[in-house]
Amino acid sequence: MPTVLILSKRADIYVDLLHQQDLPNLEIVTAPEHFSRADVALGEPSLIRSALPGLDSLRWAQSIWAGVEPLLEEGLRRDYVLTNARGVFGRLMSEYVLTYLLMHERKVLQRWQAQQARHWDGTDTGSLRDKTIGLLGVGSIGAEVARFAKFFEINVHGYTRASADCAFVDVYAHPPTALEEFVRPLDYLVNILPNTPRTRKLITASVLQALPAHALFLNVGRGAAVDEFALAQALKTGAIAGAILDVFEQEPLPAENPLWDAPNLFITSHSAAPSLPGDIARLFGENYRRYVAGEPLTYVVDFARGY
Amino acid sequence: MPTVLILSKRADIYVDLLHQQDLPNLEIVTAPEHFSRADVALGEPSLIRSALPGLDSLRWAQSIWAGVEPLLEEGLRRDYVLTNARGVFGRLMSEYVLTYLLMHERKVLQRWQAQQARHWDGTDTGSLRDKTIGLLGVGSIGAEVARFAKFFEINVHGYTRASADCAFVDVYAHPPTALEEFVRPLDYLVNILPNTPRTRKLITASVLQALPAHALFLNVGRGAAVDEFALAQALKTGAIAGAILDVFEQEPLPAENPLWDAPNLFITSHSAAPSLPGDIARLFGENYRRYVAGEPLTYVVDFARGY
Repeated sequence: MPTVLILSKRADIYVDLLHQQDLPNLEIVTAPEHFSRADVALGEPSLIRSALPGLDSLRWAQSIWAGVEPLLEEGLRRDYVLTNARGVFGRLMSEYVLTYLLMHERKVLQRWQAQQARHWDGTDTGSLRDKTIGLLGVGSIGAEVARFAKFFEINVHGYTRASADCAFVDVYAHPPTALEEFVRPLDYLVNILPNTPRTRKLITASVLQALPAHALFLNVGRGAAVDEFALAQALKTGAIAGAILDVFEQEPLPAENPLWDAPNLFITSHSAAPSLPGDIARLFGENYRRYVAGEPLTYVVDFARGY
Repeated sequence: MPTVLILSKRADIYVDLLHQQDLPNLEIVTAPEHFSRADVALGEPSLIRSALPGLDSLRWAQSIWAGVEPLLEEGLRRDYVLTNARGVFGRLMSEYVLTYLLMHERKVLQRWQAQQARHWDGTDTGSLRDKTIGLLGVGSIGAEVARFAKFFEINVHGYTRASADCAFVDVYAHPPTALEEFVRPLDYLVNILPNTPRTRKLITASVLQALPAHALFLNVGRGAAVDEFALAQALKTGAIAGAILDVFEQEPLPAENPLWDAPNLFITSHSAAPSLPGDIARLFGENYRRYVAGEPLTYVVDFARGY
């Protein structure tokens, strides 16, 4: 009989949602005295990390986030199966990306400011049709963003190390193709890469300079992928038209960070794709049934790759 | 040999675009001395209206707008075929509608204001999925908005006098069903109706009151369809959550109009779906080939119905 330990700020909600699913042989615990006998943990990676030394019976941990950095640190045990949250964020990320692309083409902020001055601003709008988007990373989230982009008849370019089989990507590029070459024809560049040693500071001053001056940069992956200083410079000098950042090297972004003042920048405070408990509980339930049946779990994290 | 009179502020652009299409036997004129021998007119409805008494040979007029009110006035001649611009606006209107629905669910303006105060606002976002939209009017534009809404997995309700065969509409309602009843389950109400005697002031205080308090109202049809005073009241009292208005009874909206100050209102200054000359020239070219071949034209306006 599996013992599931819930390690979350929203433990009460998860307890309720799991009970509603009629999962077989489910025992849920939350109190510290049960840590050592729990074979399954569900929760935030940072909370699981803190409890890790005492989880003597741990066989499987399910993260409620996509990012699992706290559990990847050097020297931490890796003698259990780690699964993360995937599949549920693609739609939310896609809605996020579309929101800001549309706002940009529709000149929403310009019109809103005109409205404050009671000025009738009938400037023509642009359309997403026939624009070109570049996706850094074409995993489950990138593929979903690609699907949404194609629906709006945007040309989709994908830069990836792995899969090249997404039907919604028109043009694939792979390393060692330089990122500078990849971004040159783009109207929009979207970073969806996870945080790994390979992706750190991947988006350099040189990559930003290679983007057309009318281009938008969106970061929904991880803040560490971007040279934030170079980005602030690119915005100040008009090397790119604007940026939409959901993630940062340091979160929350400190009040004294110069990014707050960079022109044509939207800061969305890591709100692009929340882990909605309903989604996560459903995902856990499906994996739990596999666990009980002795089947392979889905969304297993490769400790070496980091995602 | 047809003589095509162009009556547009952008006549030069249209002359170029028509010449590029290699239309058979095309003679284009723009000067007043040719008005009386032109059998075809292409242009803005108000300019065609002014010239109408002198267009002795007129057989067909193609409006570059969707709205043709100036040519529908009582007492004006109707001894020619009037066609309007259709088919080209659906995509632009849909992008517009999606822009503002997404902004609303994503709390974009709230986050932008937080950013001005260097405040990290990680409030959870909503999603369009499983929301319910109601379309007043399901013609070619409404059907396209329905297609976009379905892609985002929004439930689509349509209120129409005519067609009930759009595959993207889940629930149809027709007169004499009261509008109050139609709007009650909606998260979003979008008016796409043309301006006709039947649609004037259709959206009354009572209809707005019947909407849920969290609902958004969007008007991309005609301003005359809405009781603007009642709408300003509904916004002030919080009877609805917000409104996005592209069209008004009087345009440009006069600076002294109280709507400028209504809370939770976006004014987009009739920019939702511009008549892009490339689109209109292509549409005219297709109709011109039918005209020359003696075939029925598309998008013929019924003078009695008014669209």
